Amino acid sequence: MALSDPSNGKTTLSDIAALAGVSVPTVSKVINGRTDVAVETRRRVEAIIVERGYQRSPRSAGRAPLLEVIFHELESEWALEIVRGVERVAGRQHLAVVLTEMQGRRTPGRGWLEGVLARRPMGVIAVFSDLSPTMREQLRIRDIPFVVVDPTGEPLHDTPSIGATNWNGGLTATRHLLGLGHRRIGVIGGPPGILCSRARLDGYRAAMDEADVPIDPRLISHGRFHVDEGIEKGRALLRLAERPTAIFAGNDLQALGVYQAARAARLHIPEDLSVVGFDDLPVARWVGPPLTTIRQPLIEMAETAAELVLDLARGEAPAQTRIELATELVVRESTAPPA
Amino acid sequence: MALSDPSNGKTTLSDIAALAGVSVPTVSKVINGRTDVAVETRRRVEAIIVERGYQRSPRSAGRAPLLEVIFHELESEWALEIVRGVERVAGRQHLAVVLTEMQGRRTPGRGWLEGVLARRPMGVIAVFSDLSPTMREQLRIRDIPFVVVDPTGEPLHDTPSIGATNWNGGLTATRHLLGLGHRRIGVIGGPPGILCSRARLDGYRAAMDEADVPIDPRLISHGRFHVDEGIEKGRALLRLAERPTAIFAGNDLQALGVYQAARAARLHIPEDLSVVGFDDLPVARWVGPPLTTIRQPLIEMAETAAELVLDLARGEAPAQTRIELATELVVRESTAPPA
Repeated sequence: MALSDPSNGKTTLSDIAALAGVSVPTVSKVINGRTDVAVETRRRVEAIIVERGYQRSPRSAGRAPLLEVIFHELESEWALEIVRGVERVAGRQHLAVVLTEMQGRRTPGRGWLEGVLARRPMGVIAVFSDLSPTMREQLRIRDIPFVVVDPTGEPLHDTPSIGATNWNGGLTATRHLLGLGHRRIGVIGGPPGILCSRARLDGYRAAMDEADVPIDPRLISHGRFHVDEGIEKGRALLRLAERPTAIFAGNDLQALGVYQAARAARLHIPEDLSVVGFDDLPVARWVGPPLTTIRQPLIEMAETAAELVLDLARGEAPAQTRIELATELVVRESTAPPA
Repeated sequence: MALSDPSNGKTTLSDIAALAGVSVPTVSKVINGRTDVAVETRRRVEAIIVERGYQRSPRSAGRAPLLEVIFHELESEWALEIVRGVERVAGRQHLAVVLTEMQGRRTPGRGWLEGVLARRPMGVIAVFSDLSPTMREQLRIRDIPFVVVDPTGEPLHDTPSIGATNWNGGLTATRHLLGLGHRRIGVIGGPPGILCSRARLDGYRAAMDEADVPIDPRLISHGRFHVDEGIEKGRALLRLAERPTAIFAGNDLQALGVYQAARAARLHIPEDLSVVGFDDLPVARWVGPPLTTIRQPLIEMAETAAELVLDLARGEAPAQTRIELATELVVRESTAPPA
C-alpha cells in the first residue's frame, strides 16, 4: 500500500482513505464539507489529514462567492463600521457577506463551523473574536483562509491579523492633554485582559513618563468598552478629592459615559473637564460638545482584512501576516486647557 | 402535446419545456437557480413560467439554511438594530444571514439576484428598500418568500411587510409637547416622498388640530433622516423671529442635529427648547440630555419579519400580510414646559 506519491512526498487522498479505512469518495466528502458522513468517520479522516499534512490545491477548492464574518456582538457603530468595510470589498468583488453574531461569546459554536464547511466561502473574517485551534485547523485543511480583525488575545503565529496602532493612539491622546497643560489625567481603560486595552494604557504611561508627570494609580480604572462603565468609573474619578482635569476614556462609548457623569456632577466639558475618546465612531461628531478622539480607521481595517483573506484564497502569500493601520488624533471641542 | 395535467389543470415542467422548446432538465436548472443556462433561454423559460402560473411545491425547494437581508445603507444604529433582530431569529433556527448593503440605492442590482438564485435561501428580507416587480416575480416562481421591513413606497398587495405605527408615534410625540404647554412646535420631517415620514407628520397635524392649535407652515420642514439636516433645519427654525419652543425631530439622528443647532444658538435643552426624536436608538440614552423619543421596536420588527418569511418558507400562509408594531413614548430629559 503506497501511502504517498514518492515523487514529491505529498499525501494523496488515497493515502488518507487507506489510513482511515474508508473510500476515497468519503475522504472527498469530508474535505468538501458534505454533511452526509458520520461524525465519527469525519473526525477520524480529519485527524489523519491533520497528521499527514494533506493540503488540497487552491484550484480544486470550488469555493462559493461568499465571505464569512463573525462578530462577538453587534453592539455599536463600531460593528457597523466593520460590516461596511467588508461590504465595500464584497460589493467590488461580487461576493455576498454571511454575518454571524455570537451574542457576546468570543468563539462560535460547533453549528457555525458546520455551516461554513457546507457553504465553502472564500474566507472567514473574525472580528474581536477568535476560533478554537480545532476550528482553525478544520478551515486550514479545507483551504479556507482565516483573518482576524483586532485580536483580543496573544498574536497567533499562523493567523494573519489586522489591527490599529493602539499604543500610539494612547500616547497621542495623552500627549494632546499634556500639551494643553493637564497633569491630573484620568484613564478608563478597556478590559485589562484584552491586548488593545493594555496597549492604549501603556501609551498613556509612556506619554506621562516622557513628560515627567508621576502616575497616580487612583486615576486608572477599567471598563468593558460600554457606556455604562464610562458613567460609573467617570463618576468615581470625578468624586476623588483631587479630581482629574482630563479623562482619556479608552473608547468613544466610555467617553459618552464620562459626559453623563460630568453632567450629573454639574461639570462642563471642556471648561471643567477635558475628555478624549478612542475609535471616532460617527456619534463622536454628533454629541455636545463634539468629542476629541483617536480615530481608528475601522472601515479601512475591515477592507484590508477582506482583501487579505481574498488574496489568501487566490493562493497569494501575504507580504505581512500582521498589519496595523495608523490611528490619528482628531481634535474637536471636548478638550481645552485646565481651568 | 399535452400542455397540462387534465386532472387538476396545473402546469407541469414538461409543459413549460415544450412551450419554451427546451428540455425538462433545462427548465429544472432555471427553477433551481443554476447559472449554466444561456441568459436568453432562461428569460424565455421564466416568461413562460410566469404566464402559465407554474408553482413548484415547497417540499421540492431544497433551500439552503440562509436568510438574505438587503439594506439600502448601513448608516446608523438603526440598521444595526435590524441586523440584530434578524440574527436572533437566525441563531435560534440555525440559519446563517447573508447581508447585502446597496450603498444607498433602493433596489439591488441584477448581480444580487443572480447570487440569491444560486444560493437558494429560505427567504429574503428587504429593509427600507424594495425589489423590482421582475425580481419579485423571479423569487416567486422559485418559491423564495420575500418580506419588506418599513416599506418606503405604496403598500404592495402581494408582499407581506412589517412596520411600526408611525402615525400614532407622531400623534403621541406632539401630544406630549402640547401637554407640557408648548404651542409653537416645529417639525423636521423625513423625506416627504417616504410614507413613514408622511404618517409621522400627519400624526403631528392631528394632535395640533385636536388641541385647536393652528399650524404655522413655517414651522414644518423636511430632512433625509441624517444628522446634518437636523443641524441645518434646526438652525433655520431657531432663527425664526417667533422661534419654536419645541421641535419634533422626525428621527433620533435629526434630533442630534437639533441638539447641535441649539448649542450653536446658546439655547439649553430642555430649559429653552424641548426636543423629541423618533426610533429610540441606543444613542438616545447616551446624549446629554438623554433624548425623549418615540420608541420604534426595531429589533422586534426585524424578528417578526424573519419569523414571517420563515413561516412562508414552510408553506404556512400568514394570518396578516401587513403587521405594524406599536410605537411608544419614552420620556427622558430633553422635554420640559416652555420657559
